[in-house]
Amino acid sequence: MPTPGTCLKHIKRGSEELLIEAELVEKLKTGRPLRVKAGFDPTAPDLHLGHTVLINKLRHFQELGHHVLFLIGDFTGMIGDPSGKNTTRPPLSREQVLENARTYREQVFKILDPDRTEVCFNSTWFGDMDAAGMIRLAARHTVARMLERDDFAKRHARNQPIAIHEFLYPLCQGYDSVALKADVELGGTDQKFNLLMGRELQKDYGLAPQCVLTVPLLEGVDGINKMSKSLGNYIGIYEPPQEIFGKLMSISDPLMWRYYDLLSFRSEAEIAALKKAVAEGRNPRDAKVMLAREITARFHGEAAAEKASADFEARFRQGALPDDMPALEFTAGESGLPLTQALKQSGLTSSTSDALRMIAQGGVRADGDKVGDAGLLLLPGTTVVLQVGKRRFARVTIRTS
Amino acid sequence: MPTPGTCLKHIKRGSEELLIEAELVEKLKTGRPLRVKAGFDPTAPDLHLGHTVLINKLRHFQELGHHVLFLIGDFTGMIGDPSGKNTTRPPLSREQVLENARTYREQVFKILDPDRTEVCFNSTWFGDMDAAGMIRLAARHTVARMLERDDFAKRHARNQPIAIHEFLYPLCQGYDSVALKADVELGGTDQKFNLLMGRELQKDYGLAPQCVLTVPLLEGVDGINKMSKSLGNYIGIYEPPQEIFGKLMSISDPLMWRYYDLLSFRSEAEIAALKKAVAEGRNPRDAKVMLAREITARFHGEAAAEKASADFEARFRQGALPDDMPALEFTAGESGLPLTQALKQSGLTSSTSDALRMIAQGGVRADGDKVGDAGLLLLPGTTVVLQVGKRRFARVTIRTS
Repeated sequence: MPTPGTCLKHIKRGSEELLIEAELVEKLKTGRPLRVKAGFDPTAPDLHLGHTVLINKLRHFQELGHHVLFLIGDFTGMIGDPSGKNTTRPPLSREQVLENARTYREQVFKILDPDRTEVCFNSTWFGDMDAAGMIRLAARHTVARMLERDDFAKRHARNQPIAIHEFLYPLCQGYDSVALKADVELGGTDQKFNLLMGRELQKDYGLAPQCVLTVPLLEGVDGINKMSKSLGNYIGIYEPPQEIFGKLMSISDPLMWRYYDLLSFRSEAEIAALKKAVAEGRNPRDAKVMLAREITARFHGEAAAEKASADFEARFRQGALPDDMPALEFTAGESGLPLTQALKQSGLTSSTSDALRMIAQGGVRADGDKVGDAGLLLLPGTTVVLQVGKRRFARVTIRTS
Repeated sequence: MPTPGTCLKHIKRGSEELLIEAELVEKLKTGRPLRVKAGFDPTAPDLHLGHTVLINKLRHFQELGHHVLFLIGDFTGMIGDPSGKNTTRPPLSREQVLENARTYREQVFKILDPDRTEVCFNSTWFGDMDAAGMIRLAARHTVARMLERDDFAKRHARNQPIAIHEFLYPLCQGYDSVALKADVELGGTDQKFNLLMGRELQKDYGLAPQCVLTVPLLEGVDGINKMSKSLGNYIGIYEPPQEIFGKLMSISDPLMWRYYDLLSFRSEAEIAALKKAVAEGRNPRDAKVMLAREITARFHGEAAAEKASADFEARFRQGALPDDMPALEFTAGESGLPLTQALKQSGLTSSTSDALRMIAQGGVRADGDKVGDAGLLLLPGTTVVLQVGKRRFARVTIRTS
């Protein structure tokens, strides 16, 4: 059994903030398995590496013998957006919730230990709560304190409407911690306000307040924005191994070290040694391959990772793919974007007629294959490495407009 | 059947504001009995004349053939103040609510026609509403618009806490109008925001919006503050006939005309004629007796009113009570206030020793009776007319500190 101090070190690795550390030490000292909660949106079970920062941290708790409460917020999900303003958020049916939970399970059990994970639904307690109960819950907090939350404060200052039920949702999230008797709750840094709400409500209800551990938001492959599906800068854990491997090989060196810190299961000592080797002259590409293999293997197994790596190497040898080619995104209609257009827009050729000429000369490759058809269309949803001549490369992603 | 125009005149008499008049005219034109709602606090069934301004207006609607929905807000009453800050507002039990409703009925049916009155409880619909329903209701309004309500705006500006459930209560009141399909809602001027909430929610729920009629707040017998039990300036409709009569005789002449406008069932023509007569020299005391008799008779019957009037006259003849004696309030412990102290504090005697001397001389009367006992205590909750000599009078009310 590791000491509380060792546990604490493991828990804090790569985290952003721990509140209150002394309380967590006391909880760890009891030696009982702690109840570690994390809440998940029931609408989007399509997890990407950004989500796994948190899930990895849950795994760390499991490695120390603790119990994970994987909470699916289906109660509010089944309400949808009752103000009707957000048409992209229709209410979910119970069937959809259960189907999404199934998909979640499939995905998270690639990381978490099923024996130490309890998947919970907050409809369990909110389904039984009546209107009076919701009013009593609403009485636990003031309007002024709710308006202190960053996004509410900004919207209020800008005169952007906040529907009153939006004030109830953080209270619901806090009440989940009461119902689950959580010892610790994990969330992204943007969730800090809501996580602290759980602490306060637990105190109100006469429970020991949970500790709060926030994890950083992972940057997307662009290295700038938060990884997000809508920004297109994500690596989905359900993407094919070649995609995961290729996208990881496309990131910058500084981002690679960030990913090592937040995503790798290698020990801190190992990562430090690798960093030192690269600083002393070892090709950073080796480190990138190691990372891409580790992550690909996590979701597709060792064999698939090895194959993705070999395929990538083959294309690399053939096309001499550089490490730092630009990653570009173009929008296109459903029929796709003409290759000639993509070549021009990416700056690989000076014009579409220049593009046609290069294709005719056999000087254009897509994912390493020479292009013969000058009318080729790049379909939405695909990512392709375009190459013109020996040295001009771009990784192009086509999205629907 | 009176024309819509005549009806409108009757309805608007003594009211403050009607929204939207054209809509009410349309509703009146249909000829069907309108559903006229007014909401009442389930905690305080001890009605005073201030409440009757509204109840009289409901009666006007009944006289025109309409249907009164006398709504008791028991749902929120049974929740109490869940923030626990207001210890004077403990949750009511169902038994208390039913007992209060019985008391309400007894009192309001002195004014309203029971055959055209439906006593409703909002627990009927809110008791069946679940937490999700309350969230959906909360989604119907924004924080910013709620903060426009006068008292919320002031408290927010002064950094006085507003608990979030306080935002839900106006929505509940508005939803009552949805559930009741109210055509018209009546309330005091201070209720305008909440009454308009009913209009909006009805529109949201696809119903025709109710018209809103506000009535002025009645001043208490001091002629300054709103009539209120806690200010001690009220005339309770359950007070003994002598009390009602006596308190009405103590009011100022301008306040008497105000009470005529808001409380009398005499026609406007009659009141105008009376006013004219007084302006031309008739003793305003006659008008005051007429008002006091009308109101006393309303709650205790003609015989009791006549007796109260006769008793009052007898005391008046004996003591020559002036019309304009000061009405004073003193606080005292449970054992009461010594008469000598009251005489000094009211300025009727220059000191307590002066008071003792006047009592010994037989020059002090309480409610017309000569005082023999110099140690007399005036008990809390009583009102007494003190007289010293021939011309010095004061109406003194004793309250507990």
